[in-house]
Amino acid sequence: MSKKKIVCLGGGTGVSVVLSGLKKYPIDLTAIVTMFDSGGSSGKLRKELGISPLGDVRQCLVALSNENNLTNLFHYRFGRSTLKGHNFGNLLIAAAIGATGNLEGAIEKITKILNIKGKVVPVTLERADIIALLKNNKKIKKEEEIINCPYLSKIGVKKLFLTPEVKANSKAISAIKKANLIIIAPGKFYTSILPIFLVKGISEAVRKSRAKKVFVCNLMTQVGNTDGFGVEDFLTILEEYLGKDVIDYVVFNTGKLSTNQVKEGRKVFPGADFIKYPSEAKGEDERKFIDYDKSLLKKQKFIGADVIDRQIRKINPADTLVKGANQRTMVLHDSQKLAKILLDLCKR
Amino acid sequence: MSKKKIVCLGGGTGVSVVLSGLKKYPIDLTAIVTMFDSGGSSGKLRKELGISPLGDVRQCLVALSNENNLTNLFHYRFGRSTLKGHNFGNLLIAAAIGATGNLEGAIEKITKILNIKGKVVPVTLERADIIALLKNNKKIKKEEEIINCPYLSKIGVKKLFLTPEVKANSKAISAIKKANLIIIAPGKFYTSILPIFLVKGISEAVRKSRAKKVFVCNLMTQVGNTDGFGVEDFLTILEEYLGKDVIDYVVFNTGKLSTNQVKEGRKVFPGADFIKYPSEAKGEDERKFIDYDKSLLKKQKFIGADVIDRQIRKINPADTLVKGANQRTMVLHDSQKLAKILLDLCKR
Repeated sequence: MSKKKIVCLGGGTGVSVVLSGLKKYPIDLTAIVTMFDSGGSSGKLRKELGISPLGDVRQCLVALSNENNLTNLFHYRFGRSTLKGHNFGNLLIAAAIGATGNLEGAIEKITKILNIKGKVVPVTLERADIIALLKNNKKIKKEEEIINCPYLSKIGVKKLFLTPEVKANSKAISAIKKANLIIIAPGKFYTSILPIFLVKGISEAVRKSRAKKVFVCNLMTQVGNTDGFGVEDFLTILEEYLGKDVIDYVVFNTGKLSTNQVKEGRKVFPGADFIKYPSEAKGEDERKFIDYDKSLLKKQKFIGADVIDRQIRKINPADTLVKGANQRTMVLHDSQKLAKILLDLCKR
Repeated sequence: MSKKKIVCLGGGTGVSVVLSGLKKYPIDLTAIVTMFDSGGSSGKLRKELGISPLGDVRQCLVALSNENNLTNLFHYRFGRSTLKGHNFGNLLIAAAIGATGNLEGAIEKITKILNIKGKVVPVTLERADIIALLKNNKKIKKEEEIINCPYLSKIGVKKLFLTPEVKANSKAISAIKKANLIIIAPGKFYTSILPIFLVKGISEAVRKSRAKKVFVCNLMTQVGNTDGFGVEDFLTILEEYLGKDVIDYVVFNTGKLSTNQVKEGRKVFPGADFIKYPSEAKGEDERKFIDYDKSLLKKQKFIGADVIDRQIRKINPADTLVKGANQRTMVLHDSQKLAKILLDLCKR
């Protein structure tokens, strides 16, 4: 029997967590990576070297590697000098682009260097920026501006688009076509997740694919971007770009953190909330969403489960050294628990 | 029988060539590396990050590694942006210093990453600059100024010293003590080779060591620094710092290049000449220095042999992008031929 083909769409820490859980299983794993970073070390390299933003690719490469002496260094950021805020992993990818001539060559080279499990595929090989047209007709341009916009969810996004329009990497389309399971990873919703479906060809390929499609919802809201959102709000907006009833399953967290853990998590994002369950769950039998039960998977579209990681991550101070560097999410999914559920879904 | 312990002192391309030949043999190999770069990518990182200059360490690490996907990238230099002229290998070492806290930790980490054969030991862990006091009492300060000084050999160097005085890395002393063979590699004489013997403790340790001591003389003169020098001039000056009659053998090249190869080599260093043989060789039986004969080694101090590499290297344009970046020597020793002679010397 050939290995199950699993495709995971996303960017940043969210998709990394999903990948690092799945890589331990004998599957054929492909990460299709969002490519619209405009800030941080990625943004700086993008501007200065005229290359694609590398941050999301880097995180996926590390997630799929076996942690070793080199991958540890990938996370290192320079704290002084003209190198300030540059992430070593980004510099490695930039050097590999320089040496091989293009991003795909660089990924291939680093795939060998890190001996990674699976494939990392940029969703597009062209360069574009994200624009959010708000309901008051104001436009917010570029990834970092959108992330830092304090009123995106308050005013509401009328339409998200890419400029210029870019077409999908043919390797991404081909992986989606052949997939048995397509996972939409958690992540920054307007800047990492939705933009993937704005790339010409991706939404259509996902719709046409016979794979099961799973959306893994975020754990917490993102201040300014998704305040007050519940699981169904994410799904509704995702469906605007992907199409109605394309998603077969929505996996959301029902696990709780201790008061101390919540306090620690809130240090980073004081205004962030845990995401509300689907409204159906608010009825008489809320418990049915809380206990994940493999035997019920067939009947459930909304799968509530305790998938939260109770190890709260510390912030790396150097992560904030470059203007526009994203603050990393500190409350994360438990990659092992998530991987088990996702593989259960793949098997049916 | 325990492996022969070979210590190789030097910096830059010269020592790399020696190491890359020797690493293929079952020996215990230690490179003791000069640490006084002030220009190029090394110099920039040194100034900006306050770390030791890394260029020579990098070249030794690469020379001792098995060439693979990562070592190829070590040589890559960024051609644009604020990263302009930075060598990727230097950035890796700088990141490893940042991650581990010091140069020795970084070397240990990279030794594992590259799976290198042998050890790379900085001659000192302290920071200093080279000063050349000329015979007209003018002082030329810092490595890059000395390299670029057009009249160093014309006026003559009265004394070379380091400021501040620095003491030897204890690992360097210990390797010298235990060595069976100590090789002084070819390289930039006033900035890579002699400064090693200015580090407190090194000359004394070499003098006291029971190892055979071999000086591998350069192939060509260095414009401004060693114009007109013959093999014996190098030895005489070396002995001023190391002590008289410490060197047991001097290996020099007698091989000739074709007219085309000479032309190609001179593109880089138009004023450089092939180094003259020892004056003794200029007598009736010049041939005795020309044909290397293993059986004669015991009697010869001056060993002439065809040890030139006939593959002329091209210049990497990015090598000149950072102010003060050294031009790389393009006429090099043949690492295999040299290694064979050195191992013959080790066996007696």
